Amino acid sequence: MSKPAIPQGTRDFSPVEVRKRQYVLNTLKNIFEHYGFQPLETPAMENLVTLTGKYGEEGDRLIFKILNNGLDKKNDSDKEKLNEEWAKVLSKPYSTPVVTERALRYDLTIPFARFVVMRQNDIAFPFRRYQMQPVWRADRPQKGRYREFWQCDCDVVGSTSLINEAELLCIYREAFHQLGLPQVVVKINSRKLLAGLAELCNAPEKMMDITIALDKLDKIGWDGVTKELKERGVDDAGINKIADVINVSGSNEEKLKALEEVMGSSESALAGIKELRDTISYHDQLKSDAWTSELVVDISLARGLNYYTGVIVEVATNAVKMGSIGGGGRYDDLTGLFGLKNMSGVGVSFGIDRIYDVLEELNLFPEALTSGAKVMLVNFGGENEVYALSVLKQLRDAGVAAELYPDAAKFDKQMKYANKRDMKYVIIPGDDERAAKKVSLKDFVSGEQKLVTVEEAISILQ
Amino acid sequence: MSKPAIPQGTRDFSPVEVRKRQYVLNTLKNIFEHYGFQPLETPAMENLVTLTGKYGEEGDRLIFKILNNGLDKKNDSDKEKLNEEWAKVLSKPYSTPVVTERALRYDLTIPFARFVVMRQNDIAFPFRRYQMQPVWRADRPQKGRYREFWQCDCDVVGSTSLINEAELLCIYREAFHQLGLPQVVVKINSRKLLAGLAELCNAPEKMMDITIALDKLDKIGWDGVTKELKERGVDDAGINKIADVINVSGSNEEKLKALEEVMGSSESALAGIKELRDTISYHDQLKSDAWTSELVVDISLARGLNYYTGVIVEVATNAVKMGSIGGGGRYDDLTGLFGLKNMSGVGVSFGIDRIYDVLEELNLFPEALTSGAKVMLVNFGGENEVYALSVLKQLRDAGVAAELYPDAAKFDKQMKYANKRDMKYVIIPGDDERAAKKVSLKDFVSGEQKLVTVEEAISILQ
Repeated sequence: MSKPAIPQGTRDFSPVEVRKRQYVLNTLKNIFEHYGFQPLETPAMENLVTLTGKYGEEGDRLIFKILNNGLDKKNDSDKEKLNEEWAKVLSKPYSTPVVTERALRYDLTIPFARFVVMRQNDIAFPFRRYQMQPVWRADRPQKGRYREFWQCDCDVVGSTSLINEAELLCIYREAFHQLGLPQVVVKINSRKLLAGLAELCNAPEKMMDITIALDKLDKIGWDGVTKELKERGVDDAGINKIADVINVSGSNEEKLKALEEVMGSSESALAGIKELRDTISYHDQLKSDAWTSELVVDISLARGLNYYTGVIVEVATNAVKMGSIGGGGRYDDLTGLFGLKNMSGVGVSFGIDRIYDVLEELNLFPEALTSGAKVMLVNFGGENEVYALSVLKQLRDAGVAAELYPDAAKFDKQMKYANKRDMKYVIIPGDDERAAKKVSLKDFVSGEQKLVTVEEAISILQ
Repeated sequence: MSKPAIPQGTRDFSPVEVRKRQYVLNTLKNIFEHYGFQPLETPAMENLVTLTGKYGEEGDRLIFKILNNGLDKKNDSDKEKLNEEWAKVLSKPYSTPVVTERALRYDLTIPFARFVVMRQNDIAFPFRRYQMQPVWRADRPQKGRYREFWQCDCDVVGSTSLINEAELLCIYREAFHQLGLPQVVVKINSRKLLAGLAELCNAPEKMMDITIALDKLDKIGWDGVTKELKERGVDDAGINKIADVINVSGSNEEKLKALEEVMGSSESALAGIKELRDTISYHDQLKSDAWTSELVVDISLARGLNYYTGVIVEVATNAVKMGSIGGGGRYDDLTGLFGLKNMSGVGVSFGIDRIYDVLEELNLFPEALTSGAKVMLVNFGGENEVYALSVLKQLRDAGVAAELYPDAAKFDKQMKYANKRDMKYVIIPGDDERAAKKVSLKDFVSGEQKLVTVEEAISILQ
């Protein structure tokens, strides 16, 4: 028998890990609900045709495809066809409906768009939904990159109001405030500004090229970006213009004013500046002064995905070395992929695994999360076991999560278990305690032990 | 473009459905935690070798296998091997590591056993874990049977104490009590009794045959069972003995006493009677008088799975026509499959989808679950929008989940949305209200509307 293992890039979550993850997910869930968003869940598997062609050629390759069942039961004439399709698998794995016609969810955005189109007659628009589910990608596993990982998305479709953008910015800031993440920066920009920038470079067709180059500013610096812009065919005048725009500084409003001067000749840029100003204005009316994060206009923010059309946003923390922990933006035609036109949407995504890693690295998880039940009753067997059961029942009836060691094992073994389980208290119901109708309550942290009534124990444990 | 769809046998869960499902899962989760159980989550995909051979030949066929990625990138010498393996797929789909080496989780029991073996040095035994995750089976979809469905398991491994059985029985009864399910019957039996029965029939090797026949008593009646027992080679004397045992009646203790007389010559049967009596005794010390469900010794209860070795349990409700909504039992060697011997376990499972269906059919879901935010603010645009935003902020700061319609759309359209979203209240912040620094609060159920201060609105909404 070979040693059991799990597939590369996947993880088991132990009790402590599940509790910490639930803490993150529940914090977000409560905020989404507070802001009037509604939960959605879609199946782990989608029809392959729903997913292919949506994530680029590389994405298509990284989709996990499910082998059709019952292949072995086909008759001989089917088998010829199957062998033909198999030959196609060996050349192009995503166009073989006979061999595979289902695949694992690759993100939450496409299933959401698919759901909206399928249920368009039942949904009350604008539809504000959140979704927290795992996705799967056949990427090469490495530190912080998994083949099964969690996404957490929050979107509004069916409204073009910038109040939606503002609410999503508030949700980000409220979430990182509640989770206690320090030095969080929420960066915003507008795709319209980037389009205006391309116009001003006399290269409107190079909007994506400029975007892709700018996106690397953090990683490769301005020199690197200059080099890449040249390679992508932007001329020196254009590069100088981009430099002017990038170098705009000051408060958000100062930046926007300066951009109006530098980019005033582009209608698209002016539209972008206006939408950023309006979004920030709405945000300021809803924000809380308690939030320590910053909201910063960052003209170099690009976001890779090419379906964004308006405001874009990205979140990072300067407290640890880590990529972005969230991002999103306005998209004008996502449901168009499935035949429903004119349904503008805006959404943000939380990087659950990275947020978890930051909280872990900075030791920010609440201490109370580590164990469930906080008290274990020692089991001495016989009459004392009967007494222990009655105490256990009283504790639970009073709302105290408690467990009794199920076997009358050696005292040391039971204490070792309690220690490993991170119990805060142990109750010792032995002969003397039973005779006195009391219990010995031992504080596992201080080591202090005292004889108390069950009622007294309950009031301490509550 | 073809109409978007989801794979057969899978489901999207709309907001209302997610909320109802969460209500069921959270109720169970809180009980598990209260009883000192700990959460575990395992990956959706397991190595195929972990799953095959664990669920019988039919089970092996129903496992969803994942196509290996990168097949198209193999070179020509690889391709010969791939084609060979492909030929095997067409004869026996579960033995082809080159084509597929991963598969979707088929149940929660095998991944749990795999986890326990892998982490045996870190785990504090007895390990009490609960797990609530989807599983996937390539079964033919039909009413109430899905290809993606949720399991919810609660197990203890590493202890042979019958206190564990008793606690699991209490968890069942507490859960169905809290969920308000009427006419619930928790049936228990012991595999040792069934083994004793086979001994008494002079056919100890026919224990599984007798078990399988008895398991159908509810469906095919005693005549049907008699016929099947004959076919399976049980003689008339044996069938009469089985009839004596089945016909035992009265209270649980009366049944156990009568069984002692009828089956007293079998040591195995006596051991089974003792473990049932002890389990019930422990249960009685922990049970609550508030529980309306019944705990019934049912000697015809068999449970299909052949890894059970001790107490077995099954739950049904007589309030609706529906198969069992839960089941489980003691197994002595589950982790032995992965090389860890002598690790006895006992567990129960909740049929989440069926429990959901029963609650739905009997209209037992709490009404408050249907919507999230209970109040919507109408958006009249301009100055009134600014005023609405300030009211929205005050509501949320006071803990009231609220949403503002994001666009200044026609009043009727906004009211239609509020109605479809099942809002309990609508706040109308128009010119007059703004001038008076008040809001009109409209009760959407009664239709009543009154002018109040924001503070008054908050106290009503809280």
